[in-house]
Parts: sequence; structure tokens; C-alpha cells
Amino acid sequence: MEANCSNMTPLSSDFAQKENTVCIFGTGDYGRSLGLKMLQSGFSVIYGSRNPSSASLLPKGVEVLSHSEAASKSHIIFVAVQRDHYSFVTKLSRVLEGKILVDVSNNLKINQYPESNAEYLAQLVPGAKVVKAFNTVSAWALQSGTLDASRQVFVCSNDSKAKHAVMDIVRTLGLTPHDQGSLLASKEVENYPLQLFPMWRLPLCICAGLTVLIFLYCLITDVIYTAATEEKDVSFRIAISIPNKVFPIVSLILLALVYIPGVFAAIIQLHRGTKYKRFPDWLDRWMLCRKQLGLVALSYAFLHAIYTLVIPIRYYVRHRINSYIITQIRKNETSPLDNTMAWRTDAYIALGILGFFFYVLLGITSLPSVSNAVNWREFRFVQSKLGYLTLVLCTGHALMFGWDKFLSFSRFRWYLPPAYTLGLVIPCTVLVLKLILITPCLDRRITKIRQGWEKSPTGKPSENGDVPLQCKL
Amino acid sequence: MEANCSNMTPLSSDFAQKENTVCIFGTGDYGRSLGLKMLQSGFSVIYGSRNPSSASLLPKGVEVLSHSEAASKSHIIFVAVQRDHYSFVTKLSRVLEGKILVDVSNNLKINQYPESNAEYLAQLVPGAKVVKAFNTVSAWALQSGTLDASRQVFVCSNDSKAKHAVMDIVRTLGLTPHDQGSLLASKEVENYPLQLFPMWRLPLCICAGLTVLIFLYCLITDVIYTAATEEKDVSFRIAISIPNKVFPIVSLILLALVYIPGVFAAIIQLHRGTKYKRFPDWLDRWMLCRKQLGLVALSYAFLHAIYTLVIPIRYYVRHRINSYIITQIRKNETSPLDNTMAWRTDAYIALGILGFFFYVLLGITSLPSVSNAVNWREFRFVQSKLGYLTLVLCTGHALMFGWDKFLSFSRFRWYLPPAYTLGLVIPCTVLVLKLILITPCLDRRITKIRQGWEKSPTGKPSENGDVPLQCKL
Amino acid sequence: MEANCSNMTPLSSDFAQKENTVCIFGTGDYGRSLGLKMLQSGFSVIYGSRNPSSASLLPKGVEVLSHSEAASKSHIIFVAVQRDHYSFVTKLSRVLEGKILVDVSNNLKINQYPESNAEYLAQLVPGAKVVKAFNTVSAWALQSGTLDASRQVFVCSNDSKAKHAVMDIVRTLGLTPHDQGSLLASKEVENYPLQLFPMWRLPLCICAGLTVLIFLYCLITDVIYTAATEEKDVSFRIAISIPNKVFPIVSLILLALVYIPGVFAAIIQLHRGTKYKRFPDWLDRWMLCRKQLGLVALSYAFLHAIYTLVIPIRYYVRHRINSYIITQIRKNETSPLDNTMAWRTDAYIALGILGFFFYVLLGITSLPSVSNAVNWREFRFVQSKLGYLTLVLCTGHALMFGWDKFLSFSRFRWYLPPAYTLGLVIPCTVLVLKLILITPCLDRRITKIRQGWEKSPTGKPSENGDVPLQCKL
Repeated sequence: MEANCSNMTPLSSDFAQKENTVCIFGTGDYGRSLGLKMLQSGFSVIYGSRNPSSASLLPKGVEVLSHSEAASKSHIIFVAVQRDHYSFVTKLSRVLEGKILVDVSNNLKINQYPESNAEYLAQLVPGAKVVKAFNTVSAWALQSGTLDASRQVFVCSNDSKAKHAVMDIVRTLGLTPHDQGSLLASKEVENYPLQLFPMWRLPLCICAGLTVLIFLYCLITDVIYTAATEEKDVSFRIAISIPNKVFPIVSLILLALVYIPGVFAAIIQLHRGTKYKRFPDWLDRWMLCRKQLGLVALSYAFLHAIYTLVIPIRYYVRHRINSYIITQIRKNETSPLDNTMAWRTDAYIALGILGFFFYVLLGITSLPSVSNAVNWREFRFVQSKLGYLTLVLCTGHALMFGWDKFLSFSRFRWYLPPAYTLGLVIPCTVLVLKLILITPCLDRRITKIRQGWEKSPTGKPSENGDVPLQCKL
Repeated sequence: MEANCSNMTPLSSDFAQKENTVCIFGTGDYGRSLGLKMLQSGFSVIYGSRNPSSASLLPKGVEVLSHSEAASKSHIIFVAVQRDHYSFVTKLSRVLEGKILVDVSNNLKINQYPESNAEYLAQLVPGAKVVKAFNTVSAWALQSGTLDASRQVFVCSNDSKAKHAVMDIVRTLGLTPHDQGSLLASKEVENYPLQLFPMWRLPLCICAGLTVLIFLYCLITDVIYTAATEEKDVSFRIAISIPNKVFPIVSLILLALVYIPGVFAAIIQLHRGTKYKRFPDWLDRWMLCRKQLGLVALSYAFLHAIYTLVIPIRYYVRHRINSYIITQIRKNETSPLDNTMAWRTDAYIALGILGFFFYVLLGITSLPSVSNAVNWREFRFVQSKLGYLTLVLCTGHALMFGWDKFLSFSRFRWYLPPAYTLGLVIPCTVLVLKLILITPCLDRRITKIRQGWEKSPTGKPSENGDVPLQCKL
Repeated sequence: MEANCSNMTPLSSDFAQKENTVCIFGTGDYGRSLGLKMLQSGFSVIYGSRNPSSASLLPKGVEVLSHSEAASKSHIIFVAVQRDHYSFVTKLSRVLEGKILVDVSNNLKINQYPESNAEYLAQLVPGAKVVKAFNTVSAWALQSGTLDASRQVFVCSNDSKAKHAVMDIVRTLGLTPHDQGSLLASKEVENYPLQLFPMWRLPLCICAGLTVLIFLYCLITDVIYTAATEEKDVSFRIAISIPNKVFPIVSLILLALVYIPGVFAAIIQLHRGTKYKRFPDWLDRWMLCRKQLGLVALSYAFLHAIYTLVIPIRYYVRHRINSYIITQIRKNETSPLDNTMAWRTDAYIALGILGFFFYVLLGITSLPSVSNAVNWREFRFVQSKLGYLTLVLCTGHALMFGWDKFLSFSRFRWYLPPAYTLGLVIPCTVLVLKLILITPCLDRRITKIRQGWEKSPTGKPSENGDVPLQCKL
């Protein structure tokens, strides 16, 4: 809707010419796309070019002048040339004095130059008001106009009025401006479009590592062991049976990894007796990717759920069940219903379903629009209380699945315990540590520390000039 | 991204000192966190304290002065002390004259005081422009800077310029300001962070009540009856079989409860002949929690779906099927394919799946970001038309499941009909009432009333000075 | 929260009367609802009416005056009358000079009049500053105040200050203003609330057409053929078996249709040697509804997944399995485990699950709030790379399902090949074309063209005055 609104024919003469003339330096691809979009939104566009006569492919209805002539006709100049060629603006410093220079450039690599392009431009023309904007919007998005991503335009500048003028233009083009503060932010703004899921890299690496490890482990215990000892080819297990062991184990470990840093942080704060010392870097980084870790864990839980539900459809499973029935009939045996067995299997399935349900709930609340609609207390309630409930349910699901098999060494193959036994180590540790931390005496101390209390080196509690604000958690 | 942008080193000297000095009253936890964040975003920070010499733990690079000295150096003063200690500002009323006072405080309980903290502060210093802000952001969120929740900062003030100045600061800190109007809103703004899903309380209570009720009912008819009459222990049904009766029944009732208030409202409007009288309070409250009721219903439908899909994996089910086959073989019987049975079971499964599909669709469209992207007509189409389609499909699913069992008293246990029979009462009533309401004659009348028409007490239609705007529904 | 904040009692005397008086022309339904909402948000409301004495049903606390008297008391006048009655404002042109006129009207049909209502109003009173706003909010939403949809208020005007004044009012009422630029946009703003999923119409039509076609095809080959040749009634297949063929086939075709326009566009660009010529209209329209096509495909994939998972619950399936076992026993046969078969079925199930997983991932990233949180590069990565991965996995799933049946004419019924064979034609074609396009030589050429390079008609590459900005893709 918003996009369509700006797909309009140019505004009629008078209104546009006085108020709405913009100048674009550079007749390259981006300059052309930007100019076309500006025209369609009712602006008059004047291009500044080195060789005004030879510029081609420009949208109809624009003027092409020399740089200085073009700049003199507008208060706002978009610089759509590569950083390497910025130097030409130094010659124009007189005509650019007091004008708004919009730097739309991007780099090819993150942190390519010591200072951002916008800061560099500001150094070249100290008299101009440099605004960084539009670099997050591609030429293609400007042309097609209806893409979902790329609506966001990050704007930053040291001059507040210039920034607001550019933000108004952004809005008129049907895009959404985001005030990013001063030009200090321009480096981050320039790096932004070059990023490819930076927060997801660590969680995905951890996940991939665990997946490979546990897959190989299961391959050895399930396929290779059987091939070596029983000389039976069960390699078809690679398609479903083994993944359906790998997914739940990795998922549970990842979910536990989401809650370890919180436990570590509490232990560190307890030990130091203050919350005002920074955590070690690795813990900080870990804490920042908890959401991503949790979502990767959820996706594995989702796969585990479906892989489990297809079990009765599989040819192998049907064949095994048929064989079992036929064998029973041939032997003329009848196995009565085992009540304990019925309880146990139903309970572990029910625990798994409930765990998955809360897993999904956690995932939904981490959607940006949902987490924006809840307050801090509610967010913490969901992510912490429901999160631990999920961990407890899923760990219970795994424990109930293992039942009495944990201790039966007869099930070990080549002295290797079943994979899920290994997978339970971290989750159980986390839960035990958390249980210790929420004992009243420790819990009270942590709460005090998080409210700003400090263990005084001299043994006296620290005294502040003012009364501390009550705890906000 | 936005958050990162503000994790920067302080701005270089000149620029910052003149424009960007803020004062913070209070050196407690929140004052310190706020000051640190301000410093990182390029502000100069001056603390005002009762005992400037004894203030400790403050971030590096700040000044600590007496309250009046600090206030005189900045146009914006953040009051980060507890409400109980606000009285000290009365002594500063001269120096605070015309300045912006930002109240960041929270209370411990909802509606703790007769007036909001911000209004109280405004009464103490009538010459200052009091702005309520930042109370939704916790000290922890300010420090860590990258949390998903808590980006929203609600801002309200009677002075529009002061409000916009504070909103600019909020943006510079990488947070999202929301204009909430005048200080009248401050009470709601102060209550907001103390809320824990207030809109969800009623729906969750209704859901919990129904769940317990129907669970006990099923426990009696399924487990206790069997134990009493057949002396068989089928307690394992508690894990999956009974929940898988409770979930669909409660889900269907809740879905019907979503559509009852609309039906009631139409009946009341029809009876009164006007839409300009307020509905009774209970109906208003019911209407406001329809979305939450629907989402609880969806989560139960989700659980029902998974509980149903795991059926063939259960030990008990496999055992029963095996026994059945073995019995058939022993008896040398063959049951031919029953076409009616095949149709019936397939139809009720298909109805259930389609119902669940539209259920999920309704859930997705109630995500904030999705419902913001559709217009009023589209939203109504989805929530009303698709909602009723879902109710029809799910009720049909239950009816088809029951088939001819509704009337067979032989299935009653201790004179108790099967639980799903009871569960169908409300949905069927709603559908019948709705069917009556959409008969042309009633529908026309309701439409007229909703367009503003009124049944005149004297029998004549009311006449307005102006032509009523056409119906917007 | 935001909505509640404005459900307040009117502001106390002094403050409100001077600053916050608004005038509403029209005492119809919308005028009344708007006035009530304004009152609740602290405004003084004065109604302008033809017959001030006879106006009824107005909220308490408002004044009703003649049009000109009312207009003279406020700077902002809301025109809540139907377009047909706008002419009365011409008589008021003197008193309306320089004032803000807010057009809140809607039409009954899209593009009902040659010019928008707001433009018509602006022509009638050239001296007033006309702002289009509030038409997206229904009278009902204003009254109830807490609806999810309808928070968005699109605002447009040729006068920037008037626009911002109205946007401030919108915010004060607890709604979200969206700047839509000049009055040129008013036509789109007026059409907006009349739309019913315009972008979804084409995808849903395509989907419905394909569904009917393939359903009939399957009906012929599965039910009618069996009835005609074997005289067996298998009509119960209509409920689940046939839909579970239709859904995956249509889903796969639709997914392929999402990626065809990109392939076509690349071929056209390669052939023309430039990206600066417009694509044919049909291709443009196709490209714009790719997201919707993909989501329809996802919903069918979702249905296919559930329809598949319920297979073992179906009476018909259980009966067939039982019969098979009983037959085997009677014949005293034993079928050994077929390793190839185990591999094949497990592999096609696993491919299907993985394909569905990425399908869901694509769906989640197309949620507005998620796609807003990723940058252009990340969005493209997900939608293009993961999209093709999904297509490959799902096509592989179908191919593996078919296995060696594609070539066995014995399975043809009435010379008709199985439906899935037909369904695979388009997906395979797309994949082959894409494979050709990503060969290094073609890929390099397309990349160059998309960076703005042009095949010069004289054989020389075009030269621009400025260096083209580097590729943003």
C-alpha cells in the first residue's frame, strides 16, 4: 500500500519546482534508479555530472548539468558516486556550503576503510551537512518498489535539521526512516547491508558441530557396529532413524546451552559480589546469541517431531510390525497388555508433546512483532519461566525414554553408551545448578546484587548519596 | 542493528558539551545504568546527588555535583530517585523553572498511589515541564542494550516540545519512543511494566476451569467407571487418551465462546433498536478478550492435533491392533471393507484437518505485524468469515466423530453421556443463533442499526442535521 | 496499551480550551464516533450542523453550532459528511481560509469518482489546507478503541505543517499515523479500505484452477476408472486420498511458479542486453505476487503434511494392513526386508520433511516483522538460495516417490499417466533452466547487466559521466 502510493506521476509544475528540487551527483546505476524514484514521487531531479553532455540512460524529465551548476539549484544533494571518486567535491566546497549532502554509498567489505564513507565526505566538505542514508536500499528495490525487505532506511547525521529533512524525503518515497543518531553511527549503517546473519553464525556453527559429532557417533553404534558384529546391512537407518536420534539430542543440548550463560552469570555475580564488573567476553558473546541458539534448537525439535510422526508410515517399521505379529501367531503366543509399559510410553510421549508445545510458544514470542507487544516483565516471564519449564519437560521426556536403560551396560556397543545418555549430561547439569541457585539463601543474595547492592571490600555495605531505585526486574 | 549503533565511544569534546549535556538526579542503580548508556551515546552526563563527594560506582567520565549545581548545567534533568524522596525538588523549584524534568520511576504495585509519580512531580515543581519516560526500560536492558523486549519507551507530557526533546533522546539511545499524549496517560504508563498479561487472565482462567471440569468428567467415565465395573486398571489413559478428549472439547467450546459475544451484541442491538447505548460491562470485557480466547483455543487445537498424530506410535494402540489381528486369525474371520465406515472416518479426519488449517490461519493473522498489514475490511473478513468457517468445520468434525453415538444410551456410563456430546452444546447453539441472525430480514435490520439508524421512541426514524456517512463495515 | 492510554476523561479546563478545540462538520454516525473519541482524548469538540437545534445523539459535553460559527472556533475542521454534500463548503470559503480541513470520507466502490474526495474538497475550498486522514479507521474501531487492525491512519496533504498537525492528533487518539506524501496519494488512500486482498486474488485463482483440474484428473484415474473397470466403489478416496494427491502436486507447481518469473526475467535481460527496459506487464504482475504464490504453496504443503501423517489412523489403511497380514499368514508366506525399498521410502520421506522444513522457514521469514528485521542481502539469501533449496528438495521428494513408476506404462489408466508425473513437468523445467543460467559464462553476463552495464547497439560499452556505483546485490 505504502509503496503503491508513491508510484505516481510527477507533481504538477508549480508546487514541485520551488520546494521539491533535489540534485543527484552521479549518473550511474544507483543515481539513475534514485532519480527515477524521486521523479515518480513528485520531485524535480537535476543530475550533476562530469560530462553532462555524454550522460545517457537517465530517466525522462530530468536536467543534467555540471556538478557546480546542479548543486546550486538545490538544497539537498545526493552523492551517488563511489568513495574513490569523492575528491571532486573539494572543488565544490563553496557551492556546497550549508547544503545537505546525502551519502548513499556502500562498501564491498565490512570495515573496508578506517573511517566511514560519510565521515570521509564530511571531512572533505566541512561546510556541508552530511547525512548518511539510503545505503540499505538497493537500486533494484528502488525500481521495483514493492519489496518487503529493504523498506528500512537508516539515517544518521550530526545536523538534526538536515537529518529530519532527509527523513521526510525517505517517507515521501514510501520507505521507513530510522533515526540512528550522529555520524558516529555511519560506520555501522554502512556495514549493515553487507552483513549476512552475523548473530546466527556462532549458533549455527555450534549446531553443525554437534550434529556432525552425534551423527558419527550414532553411525558407529547403530550402523557400523551392526554391520561388523551381525554382518547385517542397516544402512537405510541413515535416512530417518539416525537423524531422528541426532535432532532431539542436539536440540536438547542447544536448549540447555541457552540457559547455561544465565547460570554462569549468576555464579560469577555471586562470587564477585557485584553486578558492576563486566562479564568475560566469551560469556557476553554467548548471552547475545541465546535467542538464535533457542531458535535453532526449536527448528531441530520441529524436525524431531515430524520425523517421529512419520514412523508408522515407514516401510521398515511396517515390515517389522508385520513380522512381529506373524511370529507371535506362529509361536501361538499372546503378550498381555503391560500396564507399566503403557504408562511409561504414554508418559514420555505426552512429556515430549508438552515440551514441544512450550518450545513453539517460546519461538512465537521471539518474533519481533510479538516481543515488541509485551512488556519487560512479561518477556522475562515467558523466556525465563516458560523456558525452564520447556527444558524440564524435554529433559523429562528424554529421561523417561531412557527409563532403566541408562544403567544397563548390556546395551553398550563397543563400550559406547547410547547417544541420548550423553545428550542428557549438559541439560541435567544445568537443571541441577539452577535448582541450587533458586534455593532461598542464594536467590536472595543474587536479587540483592542485581538491585545494585555491592559486597564492600571492607565488609560494610556501600552507601550511596541517593536511595537506589527499586528493582526493575 | 539499532542497538549496536549506539554502543559507541563518547562524542568528541566540542559538539557534545554544548548541545548534549544531561543531568541525572540520583546515583542509584537506575541512575548509573542510564548515565552509562547516555555516555555511550555521546551525551555529557552530570549527576546531581545529596552528597556529591560520597557517590560511588558511577561510570567514568561523569561529573557529580549538588542537585542545584547539576540542574543549572542542563536543560534536561532525569529524576532517578524513588517517589518517596521526591520532596527535595521543591527546594530546587527556582533552578528547575522552565526545564524538562523526566520522571523515570516505577512503582511496586499497580495503582499504588492516587496520582501517578509524574503528576505528583509536576505538582511539586509547577514551573518545570514534566515528561514521563523510560520507565518501561529496565536498568538491565539499558546495560546490555540488545534485548528484544523493552525497546519501547512510552513518553507522555503536557508540554509538546519537552516531549519531543525527550523522544529525540530516546531515539539516540537506540530505543523506540511512543507518544502517549498528555500526563493523564502517565498512570497507565506507570502501570504498564507491572502488568503480567492482563488481557490473558480471563481467557486462561476460563480455559483452566473448563479443562479441570472436563478432565474430571472423563476420568470418571473412562477410568473410574472401568475400574469400578470391569475391575480393570486403565489409569495409563490419563497420559494421552483423556487429554486428547479434553483438548478438542475445550478448544471447541472456547472457539464458540469467541463468537458468542458478537451474537449477544447483535441480539441486544436488535432489541434496543440502537447502537448508541453501551453494552453491559461483562459483555464489553468478554468482547475485549476474544482474541486471547481464540489463541488459547488454537493452542489446544494444536495439542489435540499432535496427540492424535501420535496415536499409532503408542504401545497401547499397537498392542490392541496386534491383539485384534491375532484374534481375527484365530477365529478365522474376515471383516470386509465397510464403505460407509471408510467414508465416515475419512470425512471426520478431513474436516478436522481443514478446521485446524483455518484455525492456524486465524492465529497467523492475529500476529501484530500481520494484522497491521491488512485493512479493516480484510481483518473483518478473516476474523469473521473465516472464523465462522473454522467453527463450522470443527463442529462438523465433532458431529461426524459422534455420528450415531449421540443417541445410543447404551454408551452412557452411570447415566453420563460421552464428554464430546456435552462439548457440542455451546458450539451448536452459537451456530444456530448465527444462522437465525443472518436471515435476510434480521440481517438488514442489524446493518441499518450499525450504520447509525435508531428506532425512534415515537415510531418515526430519527432525523439528523446531516446525512450519515455510509457504513464503514 | 496504547489504546487504553487514551481512554481517559477530558483534560481539565484551561489547557484544553485554548489549544485543543476541534470542529467536526456532520453529526452522522462517523462524526459522532469521532467526536466521542476526541472528547475522551482531551479535546474540546464543536459540531457544525445544518440544523444545530435538531442534531441528536451527540456525545455529552459538545457544542453544536452552525457550520460557519463552528468553523470559526477551531483551526482544524473534520469534514464527516458524504462527498455528495460537499458543496456547502463553498459558501464557507472565507471562514475556512488558511484552516486545516480533514477529509475522512470513504467511497462505496474503488475509483468511484474521477478525482479523490480530498482533491475534490481542495478544489472547492482552494484557500484551505486539505488533509486526507482517518478513512482507514471505522466508526466501530473508534468507539471500541481496542481493535488490532485499523490502528493505521494514512495521512496525506500538500501542506506539510497541516499534515503534521493532523498526525499529532492521530497519535493523541492512540492510533498510528503514516505519512503518505502529497494529496496525489489520496486516491490510493481512499481505495485502501475498500480493498479485499488485491494481491492475493491472482495467486488464489491460479491455485483454485490447478486444484480443480488436478482433482478432476485424480477423480478420473482413481475413482471413476476403478468403478468402470473393476466395478468397485472407492468413492471414499475423495475425502483424503485424492486431496492428498492434489495438495502436494499443486503446492509443487505453485512453488515452481514462484521461481519462473525470475528465470524469465534473466532470459529477457540476457536477450535484450540491458536492465533498463521494462518487463512485459504480465511478467511484472507475476513478479509482484510471488510472495503470495509462495504462501499459498506453503499452505498446501502444510495440508499435505498433515494428510500424510494421519494415514496410519485411517480405518481404510488399518483394514488394508490387517488384510495383508492375514493373507500372508494364510498363505504361510514371509516377505524378507527389502533393503532398497527401505532406503527408497525412508529417503523420500526424509526429503519431504526437509523440504517442508525449509518451506516453513521461508514462510516465517516472509512475516512482515521478520522481513523488516533482516537486511536486503539476508532477505535475498533466504528467499533465493533457501527457496531454490526447497524447490530442489521437494522435487527430489516427488521424483523419489515416483522412482521407476514414471516409465511403466502399465500404470497408465485410460492412457493417462499418474498425476504426479504431470505435476513434475514445471518444477523440473524451472530447475533445468536455472541450472543453465548459473553456468559461469551466463551468470557473469547477467551480473554485469544487473550492475547497470548495457550492450551498446554499436558494439561499444556505454560510457557514463560518472563511475557506476558498485553492485548492491
